[in-house]
Amino acid sequence: MSLAQALFAPRAVALVGASGDAKKNTARPQRFLAKHGYAGRVLPINPTRAEVLGAKAYRSVVEAPGPVDHAFIMIPEVEQALEDCARAGVRVASVFSDGFADRGADGAARQARLAARARELGVRLLGPNSMGVIDLPGRLALTVNAVLEMDAPPSGGISMVSQSGTMLGTVLSRGAARGLGFAKLVSVGNEADLGVGEIVGLLADDPATRVILLFLETVRDAARLAEAARRAHAAGKPVVAYKLGRSALGERLARSHTGALAGSDAALDAYFRDCGILRVDLLEALFEIAPLVEGRTPPRLVHAPRVAVVTTTGGGAASVVDRLGLSGIETVAPGRDAPIIDLTMAGTSAQYAATLDSLLDSPECDAVLAVVGSSAMFHPQHAVEPILRARRTAKPLAAFLTPHADASLALLAKGGVAAFRTPEACADAFRAYFAWQVPRSRVSSPDIELKMRDAKFDEKSALELFAALGVAVVESQVARAPAFAHSVPYPVAAKILSAEIAHKTEAGGVVLDISDENDFRAKTKPLAKLGDTILVQRMERGLAEAIVGYRDDPLVGPLVMVGAGGVLAELYRDTVLRLAPVSVDEAEEMIEEVKGLALVRGYRGLPRGDVRALAEAVAALSRLALARGRPVAEAEINPVIVKRQGAVAVDGLVVPKE
Amino acid sequence: MSLAQALFAPRAVALVGASGDAKKNTARPQRFLAKHGYAGRVLPINPTRAEVLGAKAYRSVVEAPGPVDHAFIMIPEVEQALEDCARAGVRVASVFSDGFADRGADGAARQARLAARARELGVRLLGPNSMGVIDLPGRLALTVNAVLEMDAPPSGGISMVSQSGTMLGTVLSRGAARGLGFAKLVSVGNEADLGVGEIVGLLADDPATRVILLFLETVRDAARLAEAARRAHAAGKPVVAYKLGRSALGERLARSHTGALAGSDAALDAYFRDCGILRVDLLEALFEIAPLVEGRTPPRLVHAPRVAVVTTTGGGAASVVDRLGLSGIETVAPGRDAPIIDLTMAGTSAQYAATLDSLLDSPECDAVLAVVGSSAMFHPQHAVEPILRARRTAKPLAAFLTPHADASLALLAKGGVAAFRTPEACADAFRAYFAWQVPRSRVSSPDIELKMRDAKFDEKSALELFAALGVAVVESQVARAPAFAHSVPYPVAAKILSAEIAHKTEAGGVVLDISDENDFRAKTKPLAKLGDTILVQRMERGLAEAIVGYRDDPLVGPLVMVGAGGVLAELYRDTVLRLAPVSVDEAEEMIEEVKGLALVRGYRGLPRGDVRALAEAVAALSRLALARGRPVAEAEINPVIVKRQGAVAVDGLVVPKE
Repeated sequence: MSLAQALFAPRAVALVGASGDAKKNTARPQRFLAKHGYAGRVLPINPTRAEVLGAKAYRSVVEAPGPVDHAFIMIPEVEQALEDCARAGVRVASVFSDGFADRGADGAARQARLAARARELGVRLLGPNSMGVIDLPGRLALTVNAVLEMDAPPSGGISMVSQSGTMLGTVLSRGAARGLGFAKLVSVGNEADLGVGEIVGLLADDPATRVILLFLETVRDAARLAEAARRAHAAGKPVVAYKLGRSALGERLARSHTGALAGSDAALDAYFRDCGILRVDLLEALFEIAPLVEGRTPPRLVHAPRVAVVTTTGGGAASVVDRLGLSGIETVAPGRDAPIIDLTMAGTSAQYAATLDSLLDSPECDAVLAVVGSSAMFHPQHAVEPILRARRTAKPLAAFLTPHADASLALLAKGGVAAFRTPEACADAFRAYFAWQVPRSRVSSPDIELKMRDAKFDEKSALELFAALGVAVVESQVARAPAFAHSVPYPVAAKILSAEIAHKTEAGGVVLDISDENDFRAKTKPLAKLGDTILVQRMERGLAEAIVGYRDDPLVGPLVMVGAGGVLAELYRDTVLRLAPVSVDEAEEMIEEVKGLALVRGYRGLPRGDVRALAEAVAALSRLALARGRPVAEAEINPVIVKRQGAVAVDGLVVPKE
Repeated sequence: MSLAQALFAPRAVALVGASGDAKKNTARPQRFLAKHGYAGRVLPINPTRAEVLGAKAYRSVVEAPGPVDHAFIMIPEVEQALEDCARAGVRVASVFSDGFADRGADGAARQARLAARARELGVRLLGPNSMGVIDLPGRLALTVNAVLEMDAPPSGGISMVSQSGTMLGTVLSRGAARGLGFAKLVSVGNEADLGVGEIVGLLADDPATRVILLFLETVRDAARLAEAARRAHAAGKPVVAYKLGRSALGERLARSHTGALAGSDAALDAYFRDCGILRVDLLEALFEIAPLVEGRTPPRLVHAPRVAVVTTTGGGAASVVDRLGLSGIETVAPGRDAPIIDLTMAGTSAQYAATLDSLLDSPECDAVLAVVGSSAMFHPQHAVEPILRARRTAKPLAAFLTPHADASLALLAKGGVAAFRTPEACADAFRAYFAWQVPRSRVSSPDIELKMRDAKFDEKSALELFAALGVAVVESQVARAPAFAHSVPYPVAAKILSAEIAHKTEAGGVVLDISDENDFRAKTKPLAKLGDTILVQRMERGLAEAIVGYRDDPLVGPLVMVGAGGVLAELYRDTVLRLAPVSVDEAEEMIEEVKGLALVRGYRGLPRGDVRALAEAVAALSRLALARGRPVAEAEINPVIVKRQGAVAVDGLVVPKE
């Protein structure tokens, strides 16, 4: 019996703590299994009753007749129940009970012990704090989620994994009301054992699943999820994520130097992108997008995305077009003057469908959107008929309905056409679709041996480390008191060399633009008061400054960042992140996305800087991800001076792991 | 008979071009008037029929029995119909027919003639290209909008004015499905005569209207709408706008669609704010916000807004909290440790309601939001009962329902509680509510006499104009070839003085940091090749540069702008706009909102600049709005150098009106 079978298609389930009071949450799994037609055996476990809701009850899982593949634990004594499961040969235990990582440090310790014991016993755990597992085509409703009070929710190809149990209900109830069909829904709870990544892996292999939705609060198993997302991609199954924690609260958690520029949500954003996971911004877009991506692959456009909008209602179409424009998506009308294709006077349904077909064939647009007005409310069949008649091609076809029109939405869903309730969710889904990338293949075998001679890197040793990685660094020499003799050609800059003084400029420890030896003697005198050793550097000038960062993120692993330099860029949080390492070509793509680096891209006739050289520095620093043992926690080159020819690292820091 | 009576409560309506084919659009007004119980006389005008849909028809309005207060014109021969209306003493003609400003320059000219003739005749026009007028409590459905096929849409206090006729239907159908009740709905079409402003004025005086919604593509009568918004505010009626044209394409589309000049969206944003009009970003927030603001006034907080979130579902609440956070709204839980108030185990409905009441009383939060989970789907009455039991106070109380739960939404709406379908619309409504301002009282009588001596201002004369307004400007002198003699104290800067050379820096016409007379002679030599006259200025240094601008916007009138200086700030579009003039205090508030000017607000321990002095420059430039005849089209001070003490205008331009 495979894990997937035990989880989704168990021959028998034990309900540990099943209540005989039909109104209680703990009675729900038994009621729901019966209501939705589970074909296996249901075994209530309740030591105080001989019978629960009409079924014979057992004192423990051990006493229940085997084989039992899956147990659902709803009692506080989870540890004892787990032991019983192991003795009874149960393969998977889903744990609804809470009081684990959801309840402070003590709870987290309890959870660690539970997970360790489960491993010893060979029982896989879902949860704790999980609301269970639903398989609609398989008629398994092993859950306490009240959404299963619903009669006959529609089966289909959408599966979902959620870190919030209640949001499974939210998506299932809203999706079902639109006629969207679901396959498997899994509430992973605290992920003590089975995590999002492993479940996505199972869904990648599941014939009933065609699209995978994720509702996430964080990512606990980034490597496994990345691997599973790649498998899903290979199987032609898009993975779409909605993740909480975009606001300041999550951002504040990042407390590192580069953290100020690149918070944890930005890290996960980079991660999703590189894993080929689409990310939606709006909650309803999470399920509304499913038919838009089902059976499709990342669009890989080399131009700005173009959507052809066909409408019978001007104002309604404008509300989506406006929103698409905010995401940089163009609206086009191949072969027409107007920006929108108005079919108010189109005549027959066949003519409407023919227009859609010709647009789906046209090389001049990348997607087709039909906007339907009030007819969708009063004549649903008639209103959506031409859209349903249009051919299904690799190019996405979607609809936005302006009135309240649930029946039309459901007809479109049943016909496999993505149908949106709001202009915003529609535009969000298109944005996510066009941003969708093929999973990046990531070199992960270490090939660099780093000499981490310092526990605390000063500026000189940081620059040496960057040079060792292949970054072009400024010519510099260490000079010592009293004379500070050096042989760097003038003009130079001089900085006090100390890992102790954090803010050298504010401390008066930096002197720039030293033109000759006299100037040098005069200007370095005050530095002697701060310390014995200074760093003398060739004075570099360029067109603009950039910042390049590296961070070994605790959630998603090594990241590389590039942004415009200076305090303004910091204020505007104008940085771009990718999983590290990146190639020079990938680094150039990153630089393209930094608004402030327009300064070196020839903005407003300004001279062009050596973007390739900056990209080389980004790629070189990103190779910290390949260092054996990954000894660096963080590194930052700030600034890289971008010149007409070349780009030079002038200052930086390295923070080794503890 | 007042305009409002003729428009909304006519004793008789003439339907010019009423069709006898019930399926045609032009048959709709007659069908809808009957269906929704209009009590007045309905007079079909159709020269080819003696009877239309069972009612006696007349050859023209002139032949119909009077008095006729309102005519609805649906024929191409609008001009003739208008003459007939005048002869028959019709007070208002609503024109559905199109082919006016919606159809190119010829159409616009036709419209101008029609409007002029209507003025001569004393007939008020709604439209052309209007879908008509609906008054639900008054049982008037004088419209071609198919949404009136609906049976008994609920009456209530929400009125709406729309530049898109179809969007009236969108909002009415979606609102009605949620149990929201509407009063008057007006499709203003091309606004040849009656515009949004005048209609809002009527609604401000309308006892049945409690909230006014606007669906806008542009603003054609800014002064009148501003005045009407003030009257609505005085009458305690919030005005909420959703406006298209936020994206560049959307703006272009709004223009081509209505034949109107669409303004820059940022200008309209400033305009709405200063008029006390709330602006929502999401379409559904436009009507969902109504109960949140009804009977309330702008919150006038002096701290970041705080919402107390009460929930029975963690994941659902988190999705709103996250979104609120993105808008800078804090989530608080007075007297509790957790950020969210979890009432999953709250016990009775009375206890839940008591919690809500205590939060509504608490000085520690500014609004209360209840998030309801799956119970809203299966037990609507039970789920929303405690929310409906909570007291109604000046503090807003709202609900977000996580599942598909139309019945619960309708119960809340009927109870006067704002109920949201999506976390995003909920957060958008709270954002708009907290950003809501009391209409600004705007000094508008001219009190400045400007000497506009130049048709083309050079830099010197621009600086003189700024100085005349009260802006502190850099010490400067005009100097002439060959010696360029001057008495400005060193260090100085020198610039070629010419209104012809647009890009002085690129042309080599600017020299900075001239330290003494020798330096001056050497560095000004190349300038002599560019022209005879230079401007010598004291070399100013400060903490940061700002840009201050003025524009007499064709739509909304004089605007003043402040932003961070430099090319990066330009790249990030980091500017703040207000209607001009502004006081120094208002200018300080504007400066607070410019991200990049954190540089002079003590960001990261940087020295603080003289923000007050910058504000004085902003206020001074904004007084261009008070110049008699408003002769200036545009003016820009770029840069203002902000120093530790003082702020000095160093360069700028002035563009007089043609």
